[in-house]
Amino acid sequence: MINIMEREEIFKQIAVKTDSKIILLVIDGLGGLPYQDKTELEAANTPNLDKLAQKSICGIMDSVFMGITPGSGPAHLALFGYDPTKYILGRGILEALGIGIEVGKKDLVARGNFATLKEGKIIDRRAGRIPTEKNKRLCSLLEQNIKEINGIKISIFPGREHRFVLKLEGDNLSDCLTDADPQKENLPIKYTSSLNKEANFTAQIVNQFIDKATHILKNSYPANTVLLRGFSKLPNIPSMQELFKLNPLAIANYPMYKGLARLVGMKVLDSGSEIKEGFKVLEDNYDSYDFFYLHIKKTDSYGEDGNFEEKVKCIEEVDKYIPTLLSLRPEVLVITSDHSTPAILKSHSWHPNPFLLYSKNLIPDKVKKFTELECSQGLLGHFQAINALPLMLAHALKLKKFGA
Amino acid sequence: MINIMEREEIFKQIAVKTDSKIILLVIDGLGGLPYQDKTELEAANTPNLDKLAQKSICGIMDSVFMGITPGSGPAHLALFGYDPTKYILGRGILEALGIGIEVGKKDLVARGNFATLKEGKIIDRRAGRIPTEKNKRLCSLLEQNIKEINGIKISIFPGREHRFVLKLEGDNLSDCLTDADPQKENLPIKYTSSLNKEANFTAQIVNQFIDKATHILKNSYPANTVLLRGFSKLPNIPSMQELFKLNPLAIANYPMYKGLARLVGMKVLDSGSEIKEGFKVLEDNYDSYDFFYLHIKKTDSYGEDGNFEEKVKCIEEVDKYIPTLLSLRPEVLVITSDHSTPAILKSHSWHPNPFLLYSKNLIPDKVKKFTELECSQGLLGHFQAINALPLMLAHALKLKKFGA
Repeated sequence: MINIMEREEIFKQIAVKTDSKIILLVIDGLGGLPYQDKTELEAANTPNLDKLAQKSICGIMDSVFMGITPGSGPAHLALFGYDPTKYILGRGILEALGIGIEVGKKDLVARGNFATLKEGKIIDRRAGRIPTEKNKRLCSLLEQNIKEINGIKISIFPGREHRFVLKLEGDNLSDCLTDADPQKENLPIKYTSSLNKEANFTAQIVNQFIDKATHILKNSYPANTVLLRGFSKLPNIPSMQELFKLNPLAIANYPMYKGLARLVGMKVLDSGSEIKEGFKVLEDNYDSYDFFYLHIKKTDSYGEDGNFEEKVKCIEEVDKYIPTLLSLRPEVLVITSDHSTPAILKSHSWHPNPFLLYSKNLIPDKVKKFTELECSQGLLGHFQAINALPLMLAHALKLKKFGA
Repeated sequence: MINIMEREEIFKQIAVKTDSKIILLVIDGLGGLPYQDKTELEAANTPNLDKLAQKSICGIMDSVFMGITPGSGPAHLALFGYDPTKYILGRGILEALGIGIEVGKKDLVARGNFATLKEGKIIDRRAGRIPTEKNKRLCSLLEQNIKEINGIKISIFPGREHRFVLKLEGDNLSDCLTDADPQKENLPIKYTSSLNKEANFTAQIVNQFIDKATHILKNSYPANTVLLRGFSKLPNIPSMQELFKLNPLAIANYPMYKGLARLVGMKVLDSGSEIKEGFKVLEDNYDSYDFFYLHIKKTDSYGEDGNFEEKVKCIEEVDKYIPTLLSLRPEVLVITSDHSTPAILKSHSWHPNPFLLYSKNLIPDKVKKFTELECSQGLLGHFQAINALPLMLAHALKLKKFGA
């Protein structure tokens, strides 16, 4: 009998339920790059984070592996203890999570575009970027006229401009489908094809949907047909309860993060739009869970906008609530990020993020400030994000010995 | 054709036999946690280790991966260059190694309990924790009366209190068996079941053993039946000779470490019960081998006892023998541990261990003292134990180029 133990099998065996509590504070897009010689974290005045770093173990963390700039999906999965190269989230699923659609285990979702059909050819794959308001009206129109096809329930959710999400609900749906999108303009409507026999049923429904939609939209030029791509179902991902014996709560504002948290079995509460509100929700619900994921979005948003100063202010505001977290006396407090978003790049980046773990079961290292460079000198060194959750569990004494 | 070279295949290809010598000193359970602001290593006066650290490359090492607290089995396998998640040692094997039973490649072993049967139900899975002396008598009684079953030799080895190890010797034995243990009390005797056809023969023998033993023990209430679990054979593990072209010697005192060393093909000599004796055995046998694993157990034992002071003294005693090792002029000397055993936790832990490698083929880093934090600033950084043996081989010039 060959026994190669997968990482997940190991955790299933050694994780134990205890009363100890873990707080994971994710300051989205935290890591930065120097502007006038200082990164956002270096420029920020963060007395509480710095004091905490002095009592903690620190390190610098790659979300996936060195050099990889992750999307929010893989970056969060890794922080939650899942291999982000094992659980690939389809584009349809990410789009659905991003606009807050609940997706069930049997459901199939796809990203849709309204597009322009003229003389049998797609002449504009985005229908001239129609206004979001028009998009909403067209989605209602389609939904009213196509409630189901062959027993499969059809729902359509508007996004921004020309974008929507198609959701199919019912039995025997498959995501083994090619994109129904010619990719280039001046080509005819492209139907989906099934990649295996089991997907034939789904392909027929999708293609009927395209025909019905094109018929219903015939007077809505330039939005008179639809393209569909990224057909996907939920990945078959074990929950944090199952793998790690946790009873986890997510506190977030944006649909994407709520959706990612639900995907791994977290209960989800809204963090409100102000930073202080999320901390309040955590305090109010502290007795009912043993793992808390609190998500701060604004740092990433300001990074994406290239607004260095506002990102700095936002970090300084988060710093004020560190004493609130400490006053709850969690067995483990981790402060880190899902990925970097340097304001000077105006986008996610591959740069490793500072990581701080505070607990009584550790040797505090010599890190004096919570910055990228200082943390890189910490005891944890340079490591991959998939190790973050095991470290939290270990310091909270939630892991038994592996082997004897 | 997919060509992914397994780690082991790489070493089989590049390892070469040379005259250079490697000493691996394992100070069991070395890593600690602060008590009155200092870890055991920080509290210890270790002039020789510190001086050596200044001439060495250092790092901080996880036994398996971050957050995992390893048992002695996986921790040592990793140090010996084996993937501890690939070679899983069954509970029966570990129990057998732990009490010093020699297990051959074809043998099957299981952990046994004497238990109490009353009116057809197991009412105590531990037979009231009978005294070890009684256990020994009952094991002899069983062995005298059940010498073999269907050509398979039966041996029974007493452990402490109600525990024993059953060993079956012969051809065609399989470990694909369920536990013969109801797990809970007030249930009837549970026989083993085979998990595949090949194991049917073994299941029959095991179940006959249970019936025969229960018959022989009928007047030995409360120890009047047996439970058996963790059926296991030796993992099919290549030797250090085969993988790394080494001629290795283990010097240890406890059966578990001797057993683990034999498992990977080491010759084994007893280290005696005093620390100095192990170093003497190494000196006396230095000419006959090229790899020496010297195991110091007491640091771990004091850690498990929560005896910070004695653990410190023990580290200080080991320090005195570092000049002995250096006087042998090995090409490579490594000093590290299998896992941490902080006295304040009284158990193995997940904390990474300091690692020091001394050789002439290196750039000494700036580490000044052999402590957890100091070593974390060393050139090797934070790494996994499976890399330790390749580092030793490389610095001893025992590895050829990989690829051209």
